[in-house]
Amino acid sequence: MAFKFNYYIPTRLFFGKGSLNRLQKAKLPGKKAMIVTGGTSTTKLGYVDRVVSLLKERDIETVVYNKVQPNPSHVQINEGAAIIRAEGCDFLVGIGGGSSIDSAKAMSMAATNEGDVWDYISGKARMKNPTLPVVAIPTTAGTGTEADQWFVVTNEETNEKIGWGGDKFYPVLSIVDPDLMMSVPPAYTAYQGMDAFYHAVEGYIAKVASPVSEMFSLKAIELIGQYLPTAVADGSNEEARAAMATASTLAGMVEALSSTTSEHAMEHALSAFHPNLTHGAGLIMISEEYHKLFAQNMPERYIEMAKVLGYPDSKDPMNFVKALSDLIDKTGTRDLKMSEFGIAENELEALADNALATGMAMFKADRIELTKEDVLGIYQRSYK
Amino acid sequence: MAFKFNYYIPTRLFFGKGSLNRLQKAKLPGKKAMIVTGGTSTTKLGYVDRVVSLLKERDIETVVYNKVQPNPSHVQINEGAAIIRAEGCDFLVGIGGGSSIDSAKAMSMAATNEGDVWDYISGKARMKNPTLPVVAIPTTAGTGTEADQWFVVTNEETNEKIGWGGDKFYPVLSIVDPDLMMSVPPAYTAYQGMDAFYHAVEGYIAKVASPVSEMFSLKAIELIGQYLPTAVADGSNEEARAAMATASTLAGMVEALSSTTSEHAMEHALSAFHPNLTHGAGLIMISEEYHKLFAQNMPERYIEMAKVLGYPDSKDPMNFVKALSDLIDKTGTRDLKMSEFGIAENELEALADNALATGMAMFKADRIELTKEDVLGIYQRSYK
Repeated sequence: MAFKFNYYIPTRLFFGKGSLNRLQKAKLPGKKAMIVTGGTSTTKLGYVDRVVSLLKERDIETVVYNKVQPNPSHVQINEGAAIIRAEGCDFLVGIGGGSSIDSAKAMSMAATNEGDVWDYISGKARMKNPTLPVVAIPTTAGTGTEADQWFVVTNEETNEKIGWGGDKFYPVLSIVDPDLMMSVPPAYTAYQGMDAFYHAVEGYIAKVASPVSEMFSLKAIELIGQYLPTAVADGSNEEARAAMATASTLAGMVEALSSTTSEHAMEHALSAFHPNLTHGAGLIMISEEYHKLFAQNMPERYIEMAKVLGYPDSKDPMNFVKALSDLIDKTGTRDLKMSEFGIAENELEALADNALATGMAMFKADRIELTKEDVLGIYQRSYK
Repeated sequence: MAFKFNYYIPTRLFFGKGSLNRLQKAKLPGKKAMIVTGGTSTTKLGYVDRVVSLLKERDIETVVYNKVQPNPSHVQINEGAAIIRAEGCDFLVGIGGGSSIDSAKAMSMAATNEGDVWDYISGKARMKNPTLPVVAIPTTAGTGTEADQWFVVTNEETNEKIGWGGDKFYPVLSIVDPDLMMSVPPAYTAYQGMDAFYHAVEGYIAKVASPVSEMFSLKAIELIGQYLPTAVADGSNEEARAAMATASTLAGMVEALSSTTSEHAMEHALSAFHPNLTHGAGLIMISEEYHKLFAQNMPERYIEMAKVLGYPDSKDPMNFVKALSDLIDKTGTRDLKMSEFGIAENELEALADNALATGMAMFKADRIELTKEDVLGIYQRSYK
């Protein structure tokens, strides 16, 4: 299977090794771009410079905002938006992991709609003006935000981490070049790859799954089961990196068409209270207990997922949980402990309350109705 | 599996039973629509009136053009375009089979670009002005044009039938409501369903197939194998109709992302010279000989397709040809004869020349290079 394709969903997606050079000819939505990035690896590895010079060749001016944090806060979104207005940028290029691309999406709204972006995200205010166009260049295989209309912003004052978005937030162009992902360290390759895995799985068990999102889910799950352990063990394996980049984008399309479930809401609560916790790591820590509960309640769906995870003749939904545990072992993430991220056992109830309140929409996507006790139980059984 | 989903590729797709009523609230691209249709069943069954009144409720004026023929000719496209200009319509609604929606797509260009539309399609002239937006409402399960950027126009003077298009020709909105397909007679249900089948198959064996188009292809092939015989035998079977509508749209997405192959070029030659020949029927008559040849040359791909057509453990590419023959029998299309459509055996060489000349792009999509002898041989062995 060739891991190289273009796709239009409605984002124009250039995919594959070397595709960053598409910036030389691709139709771009403006004349002055703000490049939104984290300022560490994307700068050190020269990716930002490459983008700047590729755009310069086309007489497109650039301003670089390189202060994006792992869990982007509304304060930084507002800061970036002010710079966009001051500099007169007419589009954004988000390059980096999910936080950089999500920040670009959030800034694309904040730049054209006055006030604190949090007012829009929290529902206090309504957008009046069109967003600026966003170009997405992911350098990790996990978020899938390059192929969906969602972004996540954190409010550190209120410990809220909210996923928000809508059709206006699909990037106009996304370039997925696995060459930019070769140097992601093993632990992050695992966290990000598992994030994509949970996107695909949650989209598959969500109420709103469709024949198309289900296809994307099963293909992404299959690719991740097959290639993530290799990508973690040998980051220089180009096939594994390209397969994971494909899986991540497919899982993003699942996000676009289906939904995350309460698993994501439960993780958002963890990393909202503990911003040092990586999203993917948070998901891994709660996922076995979470899916044990769900597998009992929708056996057919878990059997289908088990089939693409090494149990082709599976008739037992618990084979999925076995395959998941196996994947956690093979990706070297078995030893993650909530306690090591500063999460105290006596916090879990507050976290359950936060998850249910802040992530209500994701709980509504579940095919079964979780009680606070269910949520707390998953946290407690996952705690170490 | 729920056969009800929304999709954005970049067409906004409303899919499923009853979805025609989405016209009450869906974002529409203008204030005065020309409705493009064939004027027989879509009118008799009241679909055109329903669309007109649904639009009227929203103060959207309509003009009905109901003279679309099975193989739309450039003359009619020009005629429709003149009416659009005279009436000042700002968008089009194509409702009916592929010919109605394709005509709307062609008129969307002809209305804003002066002269004979054939000059643009044949490459004599270049489009200067933007196309008008098109809304597509398919009433058959076959063409898939509601989900792709292509259309086919015939020039009866020169016996050319050319597939043309580009990103500007994706419908802005497509509504796929299987309720509108319930009364398609058995023979046409078979021809149209098999057309979708060949779209999926050709897209799968084409050079430019991608991991995503392959997913769509295999799912469409599987659904058609499973449901087309039922849809033909019992048109009132809602599940079979919805499954076929899904398969047809998925096959359209394959068209959008991959390509047809020389099989379509060979059929276009037949129906260009014999406009009374239904496209799907033409494909059926040549497909067994065509795929026998290709199956030998790319066994892996044919084995994968055989697996979703009732040979799950297949190791023999010829199982696909068996499954195809089986499908031809089960859909009651075994007795189609070129001779009965007025095709004379001594024409076949001219048809081969026409296919190779007019359909060059489709031959280029093949993974093997067919000679004129190959093409002629397929026609001759298919002739009865």
